[in-house]
Amino acid sequence: MPFHFALAPGGFKESLSARQAAEAMASGVRRVAPTATLDLIPLVDGGEGTAEALALATGGRLVHRAATGPVGEPVPTHFALLGTSGALGTRPTAVVEMAAVAGLSLVPADRRDPGATTTYGVGELIRAALETGVRRVIVGCGDSGTSDGGAGALQALGARLLDADGAELPPGGAALARLERIDPSGLDPRLAQTELLAACNPFNVLCGPSGVAGVFGPQKGATPAQVRSLAAALERWATVLARDLIHSRAAVDLRTGPGTGASGGLGAGLAALGTRLLPRFEVLLDHLDLDARLSRADLVLTAEGSLDRQTARGKVPAEVARRAKGFGKPVLALAGTLGEGAEETRATGIDAYRSILPAPLALSDALALAPRHLADATEHAVRMVLLGTRLPVRRQLTGAGSVGE
Amino acid sequence: MPFHFALAPGGFKESLSARQAAEAMASGVRRVAPTATLDLIPLVDGGEGTAEALALATGGRLVHRAATGPVGEPVPTHFALLGTSGALGTRPTAVVEMAAVAGLSLVPADRRDPGATTTYGVGELIRAALETGVRRVIVGCGDSGTSDGGAGALQALGARLLDADGAELPPGGAALARLERIDPSGLDPRLAQTELLAACNPFNVLCGPSGVAGVFGPQKGATPAQVRSLAAALERWATVLARDLIHSRAAVDLRTGPGTGASGGLGAGLAALGTRLLPRFEVLLDHLDLDARLSRADLVLTAEGSLDRQTARGKVPAEVARRAKGFGKPVLALAGTLGEGAEETRATGIDAYRSILPAPLALSDALALAPRHLADATEHAVRMVLLGTRLPVRRQLTGAGSVGE
Repeated sequence: MPFHFALAPGGFKESLSARQAAEAMASGVRRVAPTATLDLIPLVDGGEGTAEALALATGGRLVHRAATGPVGEPVPTHFALLGTSGALGTRPTAVVEMAAVAGLSLVPADRRDPGATTTYGVGELIRAALETGVRRVIVGCGDSGTSDGGAGALQALGARLLDADGAELPPGGAALARLERIDPSGLDPRLAQTELLAACNPFNVLCGPSGVAGVFGPQKGATPAQVRSLAAALERWATVLARDLIHSRAAVDLRTGPGTGASGGLGAGLAALGTRLLPRFEVLLDHLDLDARLSRADLVLTAEGSLDRQTARGKVPAEVARRAKGFGKPVLALAGTLGEGAEETRATGIDAYRSILPAPLALSDALALAPRHLADATEHAVRMVLLGTRLPVRRQLTGAGSVGE
Repeated sequence: MPFHFALAPGGFKESLSARQAAEAMASGVRRVAPTATLDLIPLVDGGEGTAEALALATGGRLVHRAATGPVGEPVPTHFALLGTSGALGTRPTAVVEMAAVAGLSLVPADRRDPGATTTYGVGELIRAALETGVRRVIVGCGDSGTSDGGAGALQALGARLLDADGAELPPGGAALARLERIDPSGLDPRLAQTELLAACNPFNVLCGPSGVAGVFGPQKGATPAQVRSLAAALERWATVLARDLIHSRAAVDLRTGPGTGASGGLGAGLAALGTRLLPRFEVLLDHLDLDARLSRADLVLTAEGSLDRQTARGKVPAEVARRAKGFGKPVLALAGTLGEGAEETRATGIDAYRSILPAPLALSDALALAPRHLADATEHAVRMVLLGTRLPVRRQLTGAGSVGE
């Protein structure tokens, strides 16, 4: 039986998608171990590339169409119809990736007004998905360019957000300060017959000191004054949602429940429709059959743009390592950058890690050359592992208690 | 028996001596394999640190004194008296490191005139060594700041370099253009009873297109016009040396023989005194008992500032790998920078290599942080090797013919 590698990277921000990363790693492995078998498992965290990755992994397809972008202009976008090779059974399922229609990369730098950007297109995509007859919609949250609490998405799905004069609110989170009531009577009736899931980072919440306005607003272009007024508007949004939408009285606290702040508060808006907010890896990675694929590997390689103290808090390499360790698999991680606290990732099950850089160079060059550097570093890392397989005193070394984790 | 590492790095130019490099590597290994035994073998190539390293390795000592520096001013310097634990037997031996008295680092940037700098101090150190009663003097060549063909060294040892008026020439290579004849009658008579060896890079020659003036002159501050006149002066030097010094008629062609260009032509001047010019590793590494120490290692780690196409042409990691492979030992190399052609080093016996950089950064930061980066990278590399020792399908991987060399 040939040696079997699982290559399970996340994306490298600004330089490599998870798929490109997996392919670069594969080319590096093949130079050293041409007879080995490789399983490429590009991983997604709900953000950019999520719909495509899940479509590919399940034998499904992407449906392309136009929808309203985050600054109100139409953008070409897509959602995924999953195939049946996923682990979640045969219920017809769509994946709507919010980043594909309301992501930060769709917001021109000179229009980064977090009080004005809208998730309207997310609602349009959900509606388009419902029209295909799916019985489950998974909304991938991550890499968002919006902070409207999902208000736009609810409007696109038929809810009316009204001010004191009974007029419909314009798009954007800032307008929510004037929200008087929500009329849900126009909501798409198919929503009630559909299982709604959102893949969220549970650490993101809508309101309070760790809320959307304070934490993400500045990243999306907010001034301090905008942060304060946006925070107040989202408080108002949570209050009226909880009062006027029946599902809001269910499980989750819309202000501070886990995931309510995902994608600029889209989590809260979706939760008010009855969407279950789930930890992103739980809902996504099962579709990739990740556990089974890791269990078959002799060696697991993972990667991400940065390996640092944050990695252990729910990033891709930590999740891969945690699952691989359930099967006792050795895990090797590669990173564009090793940051402070990288050594803490060993607690997650990463046995060894390294950066991919070959020489002193500027960040811009590092980003441009990332595919080559990742391939080369993978090759070099595998050579070191293979060197270990030849050591004559294997037992003594491992017996010394000095290995990896 | 505990696992045994040989740590055999060269120096990292401008940031780490070979000894500092070995110590950084040791600290990295200890974090992973605290019960392993470590043999620190800092390697030298004839340049900076050679005398100290050989004194340490043989149980000898350094003799400190002042001598004439490369720009004519006295500098504190030293030579080594080797102990008896070396491999070359019991003949009393001194090591004169030319870089310690005429090295480039002793030439102030505003005085880099390759026509004026002198090896006079090298001759003074050889004389001081002779006064201790040694029967062998090894001159380490490398990292020189001079281009005088060793003329200064010969003057210090008693030769008179005379112009057409019978006047002694001033210091520096440029003056050799006016050399009429050499009076060797005053040469120290002890030279004739002493075995003289020089550790040279054999690729360095005195004259011709690959000669000292053209290749090294610009590095040492020469303009194109200076290069041409220096080349002519060194031609004159070779001609008169060959005519007036009896030893010059022996083995080596002073113009283009291997090593005649070592240290700005010091090789040629020394050869004219009967010094044997030997490949640097041959004469140096035997003193370190290198072969025996590598033969006892389970894993050999080497390192140098840069790993690139030049490495295979006689640099430290290539020499270490070549010798280690004689004993079938696995060799892992670390480098500050991986340059073009680094992959060619595998032909020398390096099984795996990597750079030590953790993140995109400027060269100045890379130099300043080299000790930490080298320690961390060593740790990470050893973790990868150890990971390999745990692979369940060891035979299949190595059987695939995909390992290392």
